[in-house]
Formats: sequence, C-alpha cells, structure tokens
Amino acid sequence: MIKVGIIGSTGYAGGELARLLLQREDVEIKWYGSKSYVGQKYAAVYQNMFQIVEEVCREEDMTRLAKEVDVIFTATPQGLCASLVSEEILSETKLIDLSADFRIKDVAVYEEWYKIKHPSPQFIEEAVYGLPEINREAVKKARLVANPGCYPTCSTLTVYPLAKEGLINTDTLIIDAKSGVSGAGRGAKVDNLYCEVNESCKAYGVAVHRHTPEIEEQLTYAAGKSVLLNFTPHLIPMNRGILITAYASLTREVSYEEVKAVYDKYYEAEQFVRVLEKDVCPQTRWVEGSNFVDVNFKIDPRTKRVIMMGAMDNVVKGAAGQAVQNMNLLFGLPENTGLKQIPLFP
Amino acid sequence: MIKVGIIGSTGYAGGELARLLLQREDVEIKWYGSKSYVGQKYAAVYQNMFQIVEEVCREEDMTRLAKEVDVIFTATPQGLCASLVSEEILSETKLIDLSADFRIKDVAVYEEWYKIKHPSPQFIEEAVYGLPEINREAVKKARLVANPGCYPTCSTLTVYPLAKEGLINTDTLIIDAKSGVSGAGRGAKVDNLYCEVNESCKAYGVAVHRHTPEIEEQLTYAAGKSVLLNFTPHLIPMNRGILITAYASLTREVSYEEVKAVYDKYYEAEQFVRVLEKDVCPQTRWVEGSNFVDVNFKIDPRTKRVIMMGAMDNVVKGAAGQAVQNMNLLFGLPENTGLKQIPLFP
Amino acid sequence: MIKVGIIGSTGYAGGELARLLLQREDVEIKWYGSKSYVGQKYAAVYQNMFQIVEEVCREEDMTRLAKEVDVIFTATPQGLCASLVSEEILSETKLIDLSADFRIKDVAVYEEWYKIKHPSPQFIEEAVYGLPEINREAVKKARLVANPGCYPTCSTLTVYPLAKEGLINTDTLIIDAKSGVSGAGRGAKVDNLYCEVNESCKAYGVAVHRHTPEIEEQLTYAAGKSVLLNFTPHLIPMNRGILITAYASLTREVSYEEVKAVYDKYYEAEQFVRVLEKDVCPQTRWVEGSNFVDVNFKIDPRTKRVIMMGAMDNVVKGAAGQAVQNMNLLFGLPENTGLKQIPLFP
Amino acid sequence: MIKVGIIGSTGYAGGELARLLLQREDVEIKWYGSKSYVGQKYAAVYQNMFQIVEEVCREEDMTRLAKEVDVIFTATPQGLCASLVSEEILSETKLIDLSADFRIKDVAVYEEWYKIKHPSPQFIEEAVYGLPEINREAVKKARLVANPGCYPTCSTLTVYPLAKEGLINTDTLIIDAKSGVSGAGRGAKVDNLYCEVNESCKAYGVAVHRHTPEIEEQLTYAAGKSVLLNFTPHLIPMNRGILITAYASLTREVSYEEVKAVYDKYYEAEQFVRVLEKDVCPQTRWVEGSNFVDVNFKIDPRTKRVIMMGAMDNVVKGAAGQAVQNMNLLFGLPENTGLKQIPLFP
Repeated sequence: MIKVGIIGSTGYAGGELARLLLQREDVEIKWYGSKSYVGQKYAAVYQNMFQIVEEVCREEDMTRLAKEVDVIFTATPQGLCASLVSEEILSETKLIDLSADFRIKDVAVYEEWYKIKHPSPQFIEEAVYGLPEINREAVKKARLVANPGCYPTCSTLTVYPLAKEGLINTDTLIIDAKSGVSGAGRGAKVDNLYCEVNESCKAYGVAVHRHTPEIEEQLTYAAGKSVLLNFTPHLIPMNRGILITAYASLTREVSYEEVKAVYDKYYEAEQFVRVLEKDVCPQTRWVEGSNFVDVNFKIDPRTKRVIMMGAMDNVVKGAAGQAVQNMNLLFGLPENTGLKQIPLFP
Repeated sequence: MIKVGIIGSTGYAGGELARLLLQREDVEIKWYGSKSYVGQKYAAVYQNMFQIVEEVCREEDMTRLAKEVDVIFTATPQGLCASLVSEEILSETKLIDLSADFRIKDVAVYEEWYKIKHPSPQFIEEAVYGLPEINREAVKKARLVANPGCYPTCSTLTVYPLAKEGLINTDTLIIDAKSGVSGAGRGAKVDNLYCEVNESCKAYGVAVHRHTPEIEEQLTYAAGKSVLLNFTPHLIPMNRGILITAYASLTREVSYEEVKAVYDKYYEAEQFVRVLEKDVCPQTRWVEGSNFVDVNFKIDPRTKRVIMMGAMDNVVKGAAGQAVQNMNLLFGLPENTGLKQIPLFP
Repeated sequence: MIKVGIIGSTGYAGGELARLLLQREDVEIKWYGSKSYVGQKYAAVYQNMFQIVEEVCREEDMTRLAKEVDVIFTATPQGLCASLVSEEILSETKLIDLSADFRIKDVAVYEEWYKIKHPSPQFIEEAVYGLPEINREAVKKARLVANPGCYPTCSTLTVYPLAKEGLINTDTLIIDAKSGVSGAGRGAKVDNLYCEVNESCKAYGVAVHRHTPEIEEQLTYAAGKSVLLNFTPHLIPMNRGILITAYASLTREVSYEEVKAVYDKYYEAEQFVRVLEKDVCPQTRWVEGSNFVDVNFKIDPRTKRVIMMGAMDNVVKGAAGQAVQNMNLLFGLPENTGLKQIPLFP
Repeated sequence: MIKVGIIGSTGYAGGELARLLLQREDVEIKWYGSKSYVGQKYAAVYQNMFQIVEEVCREEDMTRLAKEVDVIFTATPQGLCASLVSEEILSETKLIDLSADFRIKDVAVYEEWYKIKHPSPQFIEEAVYGLPEINREAVKKARLVANPGCYPTCSTLTVYPLAKEGLINTDTLIIDAKSGVSGAGRGAKVDNLYCEVNESCKAYGVAVHRHTPEIEEQLTYAAGKSVLLNFTPHLIPMNRGILITAYASLTREVSYEEVKAVYDKYYEAEQFVRVLEKDVCPQTRWVEGSNFVDVNFKIDPRTKRVIMMGAMDNVVKGAAGQAVQNMNLLFGLPENTGLKQIPLFP
C-alpha cells in the first residue's frame, strides 16, 4: 500500500489526483491538504466525493506529512513547494511537485518569468522533469519530480520528434494553444465567471506566458540548439482539454510517410501517446478524462511548413494523470496503473 | 470471461456500454453491431477508441449473435429488440434490452404511447424491469431484462420511498425533469445541432412523453394504487445529466428526520443511491460519469408539500451503467463490478 | 432629451440598461454609478463599450444625482435604494428601482423573506409595481416604480390570464423555473465560476427563494384570493434566459380554444407578450436579446391539469428592458421605444 | 424604401440579414427565398420572427426576383449565385453575393480550391470585393458585390495595415483562427450536433481551407507582392465569434507606438474597426451581435515577431452585417445605417 499525501488537494488538479488515486486499491490517501478549507470535510468541497471520502482537510505541514507518507504531491501555487522542501523531507519521502518550482534548470530564467525569488535553488539540479515519454529512466531514480506544466506537456510531445530529428527549423516555431477553463484554477475571479467565459474566446499572456521558457528548454534539449519560440495560449469555453497547433518550416522536402515514421519511432511503444491516422485532426473530446495525448501533423507543400497538432486533457495528462504516471515509475509499478481510463464521450 | 454482443453499439448508450465493458478484464466484447456503420472500424466512429478497439461494425444478426455470446445488449430504437427476440435466442443467451420494448406490462399502454404494434408481446410477462434497487432478486433470475428508461430511473428512485411509505398523495404528483442533450441520441437533426441547443432551454413532449406510463407503472407498484402524474422533460445545454424535481402534497405533517429515515430505509444499503445531507441539492455535475443517483428532499411547511430531487448521469445509471449493473446481477458478480467510477469533475 | 442616471451600472442589469439606452437618440446617460469601480473608465469594465462610452464610474450619490437627471435607475442589492430614497429626491426626479425594495406591499413579508429591516417603508404604498401589461395606467402616473423581479415577471405573465379568469385552482399551483447564469450577478464567487456551472444543472433556494412572495402577491391580486405556491428555480448553463413551467389543476373541463381565447384576451394587444401557436413550446433562444415573453400552454386531459409555459430574456424583459418600458410610460413615449430588438439567433 | 430579396434566407447568414433589415424603416424585404422550406412560414423556421414576419418562404427564382427588388442578397452555397446571375439581372438590380463565387479574381484558383467549375467567369472582373474599409469607393459604384468570407474579413483587417506598410515579412505569416459553430451552417450533420461540438476543440481544413486563397489575394494587394501563408481554422464551442491570431516576423525593429500609429492610420476614421488599448486582447464576447472588428497587436522582442489579433462576430461583420454595410454604400446611405448595435453582453 502506497501512502500518499496531497498538498493543495482542493484545487482542480488536487481534486483530480484524489479521484484517480481513490480508484486504486494499492494506494491510500493519508492527507488532504488545503489552504482555504482546513477543518472542512473534503466531500463538502467536492460533493462528488460524498460517501467516498470521509476525511477532513488539513493544513499544509510538509515536514509532518513527510513522516507519514511514501509520496507527497504538491498541487499548489508557484513558490510554495520550493519554500517547504528540505533535505530532511526528501530523505524521508518522494516528492512530486505539480507547480513550476523545479521545472526550469536555469534559476535566473525561472525568476525572470515567475517574478519571484526561488526559495530553494539547491534542489533544482537534482529535480527530474517528469515527462516520462522523454525522461523515463531518470524519473525512476528521482527523489524530487518536477511534474510538467499542462501546455508544456502537450506542446513538447507534439513537437518533440520533429525537433529531435532535425526535420523542422526551430527558429520558425510557433505554438498556438487552446485550453479549457479548468486550467485557470478554482479561484473566485470575475474573469473566470461563467458569463464572462461562456460564448467567448481570447488570447492571454501573449508573448509573456510562463510556460514559454519551459517549452523552450525541453525543445532545446531535443533540437540540440537553443530554441526561442512564440507561445500563445487561448481560453476556450469548455471545462477540460488542451489543443496545440504548432507551425514550423521544414528543413527539407519530406513525404507524409517519412514524418509519420519519425512520430512512430518515438511513440509507437508509448501507451499514452497516440499518433492518429492520416488527415485525422486531434480533438480534445476524444481524450477527455484519459491520460492520452493524441498527435498528428499535416505537411503544407505550398509553404513548406508542417502543422503539428496535439490534444490532451489538461487535468489528467496535463497534471494529475501525469503525476500518477510519475508515481508509478517511482514505485516500480506498471506505468499505466490506475490510468487505463478510456476517454469519456460525449 | 463473459462474452458480450452489443446491438446498436454506435449510439451514445451503445458507445458508453463499450467504454464501460472495455475497462473490465472479465468481459470480452465479441460483436459491435450497428445499422448505419456496418463494415466501418468502430474506432473511426468513436475516435476515443483509437488503438483500443480494432473491430469493425457488424450487422444486427441477433440469431447468430446469440450463439456466440453470453449476453446481448440491445441499445436500439423502439420495436427492434422485440422484433428480433425469440424463444430460441432466449434459450441460448441472456438479453438486456435498453429500449422500451419490454418495460411496460400492459401491451395496450405500450402501443398507445409508442404508436407501434408490439412485435412479440408473449415475452412481456417474463421480462424483468431492471431497476436493481427495487427488483434485484427478480433480475438475478431473468433471461430478459428490460433496462429502464433514463427519466424513469431517476424519477422512480427519487420518489419511490415516499410513495411506498404512503407519505405523499400520489394524485398530486408532478415530475419536472431536465436532461442533457445526449438523451436525444446521435441522429443528425437540425433540432439537435449545436447552435440550436446551446444557450437555450425548452420543454418538450409536454403531457405526451413516452416515459410517463413507465414512471406511472413503477410508482403504482410502490403506492399500491393507480398513479397518474404529470411528467415534463426539458432539454438543457449540457452533454450529460438528468435532474428530477418532483412535487407532491404530504399525506400528514412530517419532520425532516422522519422523511430522511424513510429514504435511508430504502437506500442506506444501496451502493449507487446517495441520500445527500440536509439542504444539499443534487447537481448533475457531482454524478457525471458515475453510476450514482443523488437524491434529497425539502419539506415546505407553507404549502404542505415535499419537493423531491434526484440527479443522475443519463448515459450511465440512466442507460449503460444500469445495464452493466443488471449484467452483474445476471452473472452473480458483485453489483458494482466495473462501476466504481468516481464522478468526473470539473 | 431624457437625462438618466444609473446607480449600479456595472452589474449585468446595469450594463444592459446602459446598452439599451445608448442606442437611443432621445436619452442621455449622465451618471454611471458603481460601488466597486468608482474612478475607472466604464469601457474598461465593459469592453463592449469601448469607443462608445468615455465616462468614468461615479459614486452612488442619489441626492446629487436627483438634481441632474430626469430619472434614476437603481440596479443595486436589496436595501440600498430604500436606504437612499427620500421625499426630496422623489420630488425632483423619477425613480425606477430594479431591486426588490418596493415590490412587496406587506413590509412584514419583505422583511421575513429578505432578512433585512426595510429602511423606508413609508414609500411602499405609493410605489407602483412596474409590470406594464397589468399595471400600465398606474405606472404612467408614478414617481417610484418597483421594477419586477425576473422570475416574477415571467411567472406572473405566464399564469395571470388563467388565474384571473378562474380557470385554474391556484391552491394546486406549482412553478418550476429555469434560469441562465446572468441572473446570479457579476460577483466573484466559486459557485458561479465557469467550471462549476458548465455541464451541470441544480435547483436552489428550494421553498425559500425570495421571489416566491412577489409572485404570490401578484397572483393573489389576479385570483382575488390568497395564493400560496411552490416556486423552485434552477440554474442552467447558459448566459441569458428564463423558462417557466407552471402546473395547476383546471377548475373545469376546458378546450384548447377556450384557454387560447383567455390568453388572447389579455395579450392580443400586447406588444411584448407573444402567445405561441398550438403545441409550440416556448424556448429561451427565441426571445434572447429582446423584450418579448413567449407563452403557451398544454392541457392534459388525463390529469385535468394545465401546463403553462413562458420564456423570457432575464436581462431584458426580466430587468433592464422592462425598466426601459416603464421609463417610456413615465415619459409618455410609445411603450416600445428603444425596445424593438428582434431576438438574436443563433 | 429599398426593396430587398434574400436568396438563402433560412440559413444562419440569411436569418441574420433578415433580422438586421427588419429593424430598419427604410427597407422592405419582399422575398424570403429558400431551398428547403419553400411554402413554409418563415416564422416557423425562425421562431424568433413570430408575429414579426408573416411571409412564406419562396423558391429561388432570381430572374423574377430581379424585377421586383432593388437589391438581391444571395446567402447560398458556392456556385449557386454564379449559376443564376446574368447581364439582364445585373441591369435590373444590385446583387450582393455572400458566397465565394466572385471573391477571387483568378478563376483557376477558385476552381482549384472549390473543386467546381465556375458557371459565369465573365462577371468576375466587374465584381467588387466588398470589404468597405479597403474598397469603399469601388463598392459604391458596383453592380455586383462579392461579400467577403468570415475568416478573410477578420484576417485581412487584422493584418492589413502592417502588410501594407511593409512592417511584416509576409513570407513568415501564419494565421491561426478560431470560430464559433454558426460558421458551419444549419445543415443537419452528425459533426455539428451539440454533443459532438460541446466541450471540444479541433482544427479542420488544415492547409486546405478554401478561405486561404481569398486571404492571400487581399494581402497580396496590400503587400504589393505575392503572399503565401498558412491559415488554420479551429472549431470552438460557442455560437458566434471569430478570433484571429496572426504571427509574422517584423522587417525591422519597431516600437509599440510606431505600430500603433500604423493601425491608427488605417482605422482611426473607421466606424467598425476598433484598435484596442495597449495590452488589451480582443475577445469575441465584446463584439457579439455587432458589426465591430476589434484588433490589437503585441510585439515580442525576443523573437522579433509581432502577434496580431482580431475579434469579430462571424454572422454580422463576417456575413450579414457587412452585406448591409455594402448595401448602404450602394444606395448612398450612411455606412452605419442599421448597424449601430452595441455588442450584447453577457
């Protein structure tokens, strides 16, 4: 039995973590941490848990928690995990951080984009970026896993094979992303009210979104050269889902079959990445509630560009599902344990 | 291994059946029947099944199918199951019919409300109305299960305890129902286009909806006297979910605790019916993707009425999930096998 | 030129008032009052007003405002208008209050349901309930108009003719209402976040909603006897729209034609109430953005009840549009001035 | 009084045309043409028109219609207008075609992208591309106006000033577009059912969408050199609205103020194009129901690109509203006659 603690269990990612883990028989959630709901019944915060969870929300005491559990998930705002973590904690328990604190290796970049001072830069180096399709072996041996951001997960997996194989000129790379509203979190803000989001569409964080350097770093590793790109997220009136549309110039003339073979090379053996059939565009509804990323591409011979597309559930593969996938790796379990959900439709 | 065939596997209920059964290791789907998509890959009809289902859609040959499987589900339009079933088929396999063909015991009532001649009235008597919370023992021994309609499932379970215990005057019973759009099926009709349904709300089938006599029959059994009621369904712009708001005059002055005790008497031991805490109104989002029905009530001392409320996922407990629940009973399995999904939120 | 001031111009009803009035050439808005946005540009709060409104939000100084304008609209929380109004103000300007402060004639009822002490009961008697279809002549002569609530407007207009003519037994009256989310206002609350409302449906305020006594009072006048009823509102995932489904027993056997004639008697000459053709159910999308109320009914001979239905845009006829209609009456203008919008579809 | 005929009045664009024109006192609609609903009451097809339009839908007889009206609008599938038009018709009446038949000057390009033979290429040369912000003077003198496509209107207006002034390298231009579902029309297709579109997002027509050459042609005129670009539309779960996000490399280092000045140069005098304030991103909700296009831009100094954004109501400025704007020009009326609607919110 793996004993688990969740810090930030009352946000959307934390709630999904609880939902995924509660359906397993080899895991026990020992600690439902929360900042806003301490002392309240968890099932009163998430009524779907009625008669399923009897526990009460507890404070965010990571030191004490570390002694009680085998793994801690932090689904908290930037800076919190980094301010709580210590060598002592890491010597007692595994830590999977769903915030951005340990995703970026260059602390100066982190501090510039996140506008906060990093509270514990000494752990950045050992932290493993938890994108199993790329870093699987490193994750298995980690103490501290930096669970990737939602946009970076989908963006990186969509672009990675072509960047890695040098088929695209990464200087021309543009990533246009669309996300459901759960990505904005559960905070009470006028901007996220139903009537403000419904029946509308907008870009936000244009040229300054914090996921940009995270994507750039991963694609820099892939391309073997520094990648600077434009990343533009958009808010879409739906609960879940991220769609990535990425554009880049091809470095040479290629056929559909060649590009397909490159995607297959990286993803044929992957359980959670599905390379769709020719001319089928990824749609977020076909992955909802699952840990899948559906990817595909289209070559435009007129402009000599390739359009790469990826669809994913931002709350699952983009947050809680990927965290569980990382937990499975940390504990030597089959990677898809508790993650076999077939997408819910309609 | 239970071998299963689905006739009507490409409708929304059939698709959900496939989804629920594919996640089990004790079940094998041998036959994906379809009228419109024969010869096409199932995963091309439901792209969420990509790399999960390799099978092709097959014709609706129930006779042949009966020889190959242990249980047949029919998720088809009214009249089809009744026109295909035979003594020979029932001697070879179990049959769970998700259509209305065998739900109503009085064939004249069926023919009046459904405007078709019943093709095989000889099987009506033996068919068991598959609402396990009420007919559990009978289901276990059945050959032919009439899986209840979505509205009748939620309506009956919401009202049943008070009707059974004589706390409400059933002559005053009014059921106002709200349903998501998946209940309207996957047929291509202008009325169900996105732009026609989105941002709107309407009643339909007022005073003539076909689920009316089904609800009346079940509540007549409960009340021990003939029940006539008003049932008004409404179309709500959401994919899944049914909400029932039922009104009836109380037969005597009662306290909250007395009524609560009545609900608990019937549902405390039930895994799929959750009686909510005082003053918590059922919401469809808290049951989405699960086999739960959430019920609650409010006494209005001013009008001496009780307002009974129930929320349910129409595709799960209202169709495919309940069919699986019935299958579990037929095969002597724990009733919640494959039905432990926690509601998906958000 | 009618000079107008709006107190509470940054809520949804206030914003709609501004929108309606800005499209007129005989009206000038002199004062955009706000509690939360004083000193900010109105067009920064409502970006649709960019390059249309240059004014800045101002404080809620009704005394000063009364000297500057011909009519004040208050689209504010309960109690505010009643706490600001005075004989001096009413002697200087007309006042149309969109809150509930002056809608209910019995101050004890107001205080019981609204849980606040009425700050100026001395004005209740002279206030005119601004439902022009019923109180047209009184409105014309008023100084203080109590603009009806959204649910009461739609409920009353849907039920009024049959209550007035004694065709229904008002002791059996049940009103089940469905509303879009704009009715909940623009306050930042978790309950009204996109992901909490989207893909869900719930009842709220069951047996205790504050619009109940307002509906009861109006229908009591119509029926000529005290009316107690059940009113249950539901939250529907759409921006605008209210749908009323009302149930009552008929006092005698009646034909469709008789009931239709009763509706026509009251509404044939009305510009904003449309009695639909036989068997056509009102839908909120067909009135969106307009001042129409669409009503219809269905007789159920089995249960001897009539089901009455009404659809309306809660922000227009349920708030700002009706306020403009009342303003037109106060100033002797054609009642539909500035209210000829055809419903927007899709 | 301008007498108007609409061919294709029962599609979404045709319905919006009717709605806009019915609110005018200087226009009379003489002919509601339809292919699917001939002989049916128009108000039965669009229930919002109940008691507003009494006419019945008529066949699409352009020859006869030309004798009865001053201007014909064709809101019909590709090829229909071109197959009906003749010199005789153009000598009798003005023609505003909302289809693509006369938008593209090079008939070979039209035939390649639309996969049909052009039925009347002899009229292509004289047809005026009806984007008034660019072709105003030519429109005034036209007999035949080719009303622009929805995506091309928003794309062109968003990019035009920077292409015209040489600030962007058009070889690097990428246009990522998002559209509401009304753009897909009112045909009954499974793909456009509520449950198939709701809670999902997808790209479609990748690298082959027919609006691509139309955008390229307009931007080629602007840039003074041949423009090839990538245009990728996405389907968004909302009724109305188009959002354009366009990316291009800057040809030289520029400041915010310089780029702003360029936009202002072209749009300051325009009534329907609003250049937003710094850092305000266009949102479709702020233009819904109006003829506005909201545009803005963001310079990314890291990548030396500019991100250009535009939001528009696809049914108004993207179809019916622009057609009315063109009609106003044809008849020497103020360009905003009947187009002063303030965006509807929420």
